[in-house]
Amino acid sequence: MPLTIEGAAVLHQMFRIDWSRWNKVDAAQKQSILAQAKTLLTKFEGERSALYSMLGHKGDILLVHFRPDFPAINQVELDFAKTELFEYLIPTSSYVSVVELGLYESTQKIYNELMEAGVVPHSEAWTAGIEEKLNMQRNAMAPRLFPEVPEARYICFYPMDRRRGEDHNWYMQPLPERAKMMHLHGMVGRRYAGVVRQIITGSVGLDDWEWGVTLFAADPLVFKKLIYEMRFDEVSAVYAEFGEFFVGLRYHAADLEKLF
Amino acid sequence: MPLTIEGAAVLHQMFRIDWSRWNKVDAAQKQSILAQAKTLLTKFEGERSALYSMLGHKGDILLVHFRPDFPAINQVELDFAKTELFEYLIPTSSYVSVVELGLYESTQKIYNELMEAGVVPHSEAWTAGIEEKLNMQRNAMAPRLFPEVPEARYICFYPMDRRRGEDHNWYMQPLPERAKMMHLHGMVGRRYAGVVRQIITGSVGLDDWEWGVTLFAADPLVFKKLIYEMRFDEVSAVYAEFGEFFVGLRYHAADLEKLF
Amino acid sequence: MPLTIEGAAVLHQMFRIDWSRWNKVDAAQKQSILAQAKTLLTKFEGERSALYSMLGHKGDILLVHFRPDFPAINQVELDFAKTELFEYLIPTSSYVSVVELGLYESTQKIYNELMEAGVVPHSEAWTAGIEEKLNMQRNAMAPRLFPEVPEARYICFYPMDRRRGEDHNWYMQPLPERAKMMHLHGMVGRRYAGVVRQIITGSVGLDDWEWGVTLFAADPLVFKKLIYEMRFDEVSAVYAEFGEFFVGLRYHAADLEKLF
Amino acid sequence: MPLTIEGAAVLHQMFRIDWSRWNKVDAAQKQSILAQAKTLLTKFEGERSALYSMLGHKGDILLVHFRPDFPAINQVELDFAKTELFEYLIPTSSYVSVVELGLYESTQKIYNELMEAGVVPHSEAWTAGIEEKLNMQRNAMAPRLFPEVPEARYICFYPMDRRRGEDHNWYMQPLPERAKMMHLHGMVGRRYAGVVRQIITGSVGLDDWEWGVTLFAADPLVFKKLIYEMRFDEVSAVYAEFGEFFVGLRYHAADLEKLF
Amino acid sequence: MPLTIEGAAVLHQMFRIDWSRWNKVDAAQKQSILAQAKTLLTKFEGERSALYSMLGHKGDILLVHFRPDFPAINQVELDFAKTELFEYLIPTSSYVSVVELGLYESTQKIYNELMEAGVVPHSEAWTAGIEEKLNMQRNAMAPRLFPEVPEARYICFYPMDRRRGEDHNWYMQPLPERAKMMHLHGMVGRRYAGVVRQIITGSVGLDDWEWGVTLFAADPLVFKKLIYEMRFDEVSAVYAEFGEFFVGLRYHAADLEKLF
Repeated sequence: MPLTIEGAAVLHQMFRIDWSRWNKVDAAQKQSILAQAKTLLTKFEGERSALYSMLGHKGDILLVHFRPDFPAINQVELDFAKTELFEYLIPTSSYVSVVELGLYESTQKIYNELMEAGVVPHSEAWTAGIEEKLNMQRNAMAPRLFPEVPEARYICFYPMDRRRGEDHNWYMQPLPERAKMMHLHGMVGRRYAGVVRQIITGSVGLDDWEWGVTLFAADPLVFKKLIYEMRFDEVSAVYAEFGEFFVGLRYHAADLEKLF
Repeated sequence: MPLTIEGAAVLHQMFRIDWSRWNKVDAAQKQSILAQAKTLLTKFEGERSALYSMLGHKGDILLVHFRPDFPAINQVELDFAKTELFEYLIPTSSYVSVVELGLYESTQKIYNELMEAGVVPHSEAWTAGIEEKLNMQRNAMAPRLFPEVPEARYICFYPMDRRRGEDHNWYMQPLPERAKMMHLHGMVGRRYAGVVRQIITGSVGLDDWEWGVTLFAADPLVFKKLIYEMRFDEVSAVYAEFGEFFVGLRYHAADLEKLF
Repeated sequence: MPLTIEGAAVLHQMFRIDWSRWNKVDAAQKQSILAQAKTLLTKFEGERSALYSMLGHKGDILLVHFRPDFPAINQVELDFAKTELFEYLIPTSSYVSVVELGLYESTQKIYNELMEAGVVPHSEAWTAGIEEKLNMQRNAMAPRLFPEVPEARYICFYPMDRRRGEDHNWYMQPLPERAKMMHLHGMVGRRYAGVVRQIITGSVGLDDWEWGVTLFAADPLVFKKLIYEMRFDEVSAVYAEFGEFFVGLRYHAADLEKLF
Repeated sequence: MPLTIEGAAVLHQMFRIDWSRWNKVDAAQKQSILAQAKTLLTKFEGERSALYSMLGHKGDILLVHFRPDFPAINQVELDFAKTELFEYLIPTSSYVSVVELGLYESTQKIYNELMEAGVVPHSEAWTAGIEEKLNMQRNAMAPRLFPEVPEARYICFYPMDRRRGEDHNWYMQPLPERAKMMHLHGMVGRRYAGVVRQIITGSVGLDDWEWGVTLFAADPLVFKKLIYEMRFDEVSAVYAEFGEFFVGLRYHAADLEKLF
Repeated sequence: MPLTIEGAAVLHQMFRIDWSRWNKVDAAQKQSILAQAKTLLTKFEGERSALYSMLGHKGDILLVHFRPDFPAINQVELDFAKTELFEYLIPTSSYVSVVELGLYESTQKIYNELMEAGVVPHSEAWTAGIEEKLNMQRNAMAPRLFPEVPEARYICFYPMDRRRGEDHNWYMQPLPERAKMMHLHGMVGRRYAGVVRQIITGSVGLDDWEWGVTLFAADPLVFKKLIYEMRFDEVSAVYAEFGEFFVGLRYHAADLEKLF
């Protein structure tokens, strides 16, 4: 198993606006409902949330929240559900996950060091040794583990699994083989550095897919190019299963009226 | 077939709150509706039920009920459906199962003992002999068969099947082979003892998957680590099919207002 | 093709109660609505229908109707839809099928007898000869073809198919091979005689699966044991595909109030 | 590719009645709503439409429309949607297709004749030659291409595909092989001539499956027997994928009240 | 990876009309609601949008919008959602994509030219060299990249993927092999030139399938013939996975009343 380190708890929320009910509200009340929502969403923005207008019928608005932990995520849900605006929103999807850095490159190295030091696998010393190394990584990687929401105009989110097919089963491949494929996969991503920002979140045991991928870019065609190019990597071509794709344009809480 | 022993009947209930209707209720009536629900849920808590606030759009609240038998489960459903609060709840999912202990280790031993004693398989004596051994196990295991709801802050529930693929079919593997894989699988679980509490429930013939897995922990990242580590076991990598994952935070009936 | 004989037309109906609307009805009107429904359901009970309270969110009530033919089934649907109670019911599922006895054991025998008698396959004499034999079976089996609803406390219903996979295809196996597997499968069932009553209904061309299985028992754990034990038979392990499982507790029309 | 000729445009429409709203309408208004619908449905009957009461929860009524072309089908939809009755109907399914006769037997013959006459494949003369032969078939087959709705009491409709599996792929089989399988398949159908009337409609590019099959019979058990017998043909056993099955009983517009 | 060039951003929107609510609106208000919608849709028509009446229950109206970029698509959605008519529309589906020309034929040539010129793959010069060649193609192909909506009476839309099966995986085939299959596929399409107009849009990273195919023709049977003929091509027979098919008849904004 590759070692991983985790950071911010993350919630993606997709909503459709119930236009038939919203349009019955009179102008003054709309104003007041939006003002209340704007106050909360502005507060959320200060706590690493962002608002998007979604393309297509899968939803009208998308909210992405990064928080230090899951109680904070739970509180976000409860607070937003209690706004008056929430009565006019229909939840269409969501995703619960946590920022994850997979340490494919370091895992074998850490294991080797501990073994060379004569530590017995799964002993207390072994667990402590790994934990110590991971803590060093956690400190070094803190800005990536607890990221700000990138200011890019476009967002693309999709969940994915590694295939466990009858012939091609990711979880039955040896670790070095998987590490090699992940390395080549990472090389493609690196060619898009500066053009697209990618945040990988883990969701095994938290939601229905194993990972979530959230991309941020100034140009949505970059999502298409990056994902299409990756599709020819062995790790994606053979071992990736994709869920739904959600695309949105960034709006700020201050511009909430434009969406209603 | 591995022998199993069964205990408490179990019901998981997931609900979304109908906010557009709930928010139209005036404050005094809300108070009265919640008071009525609180009374019932407090009674339920005394009978081994627990309340959770769910993460994500699959539902707002999750109730888990352990009861001595299915008529008691049926009565729980009928009683809760008749509260005023139920009018504002939309059932989104549920799971019907029974606490199950799979006796992979003992099955072969019991069969061997009976055969060595010259008992004819499937004879009356055979059935009685097995029943006698199982009763001993049922008595010894009573606290695990009829558990209290662990007091942990987080819950994770998911249903699962053993794969019956065209090439890899769990039900066509010989019993010793299955026992060996289950043993290695159990070893992983044992490394998480004290950190996560796992209750396996059987649902063949009761609901759409073969088993339900309910995990309880103080830290939700433990769910991710445990399930991810297990995914590399042969029994999970090759033979597990997973349903939806549901995650929640424990609330007590006394705090019901916080969720509404 | 194995020969089959058919009996009663059967309809399973699953409904959720629309609690938000039902609870708005005043007590006197509820009384009158339930009285009307009770009259019809009592009449239905006299015509081989039964009422169940379902476990889980797939529905609140399950009705099973056995009738001499499909116009009678159609009339049951129309009559029930016109009750006032039906306005508060949301249909969640249903199943249309006909009681079927598969004559795996006799098929080869009947074919052999006709061939030994020199009858040309698919000739008029062949068809007439088969029909004569089937009529004898129909008369002998009449009580099983047109059954009473067993008085058992629990019901379990699920639809199923025989697999037509790329490697394992039931419909490409030779008849003697299928007959042998069905025989071993039947042996398991026979061990549960007296404990569980099983009614097989055919639905090829009538509903989305090939067969429906309806089980009746005093103890719901018997459903679990029987189906789990069968899952290790070759015919189930390799060739069975299962739909949803529905479980309920028997109520009589006279007790309808308990469910509302 | 086998040659085909096409006839009537066909629409199957399935609706559930919204009983909770319908039952609130007073008797006089119901009378007037049904009278208006009856007038339109009677007109439709004169133009080759038929009305059925469906079995099970997939819908309450089924309308089947045969029309000369798709603008006429579009007009049927628009006209029916504008009746008052339509406000109380919930569309649950539909199917868009066109009567199709597959010329498996003739295709090879036509190709051979053209090649023997020295016509270059895909040349203008080739296309014209085929078109001439098809026109002869269209004229000869006109009554089957533009059928009346059979007066049978029962209807069975289901869509289907030819399998494109990884091992078994219909579209990769050579034409003579496919023609041979279709021939044997047709032989089974012929044994049911006079007992069941079958109308095949093509829907590649028009709806989600490749073909629709509509069967008409006096006895619904014939659907079960015919389809079960065919399931053992190689072309069905190996290469058929089936959608949902819809079964109904014929009613005439004049009897519309019986359904409401 | 084959090179591609992109043009107009495209949105397909499918809606069902909420007849039960629409029919309650009085005639004068209907007139006013339709007049407002007509004004917007007429403006949309001038900006490369088109309106269709859909066949079957997947929706009543289909709107297709071609726009220079995604902010314009987002604005179309927001503007239409704010019409009064939108309150009576239920979104049933949608598709987000971008006009794409796949340069299978040129890709290998461009790569070869750059390599012969000694340019190092993935160097800055390499990227710049490719971009220069693509820009030439973008200029030459501008009318196809930013098309007018064809005036044809019928539209057919469906999304599709290239298969990533365990045995047959498009993304693991060598580029020349894929180019050859695409070439033969294109040859079939060319035989329908003048009869059907095809616009391919790419949606990797934008929506749930990899491509959208939108066909325009005067005769809907041409959709069936073209797609059926293509189904026998290796690239479709072995490597195509299809989503839902949507078919509609063109209406102009000026005729909006005919649909309501």
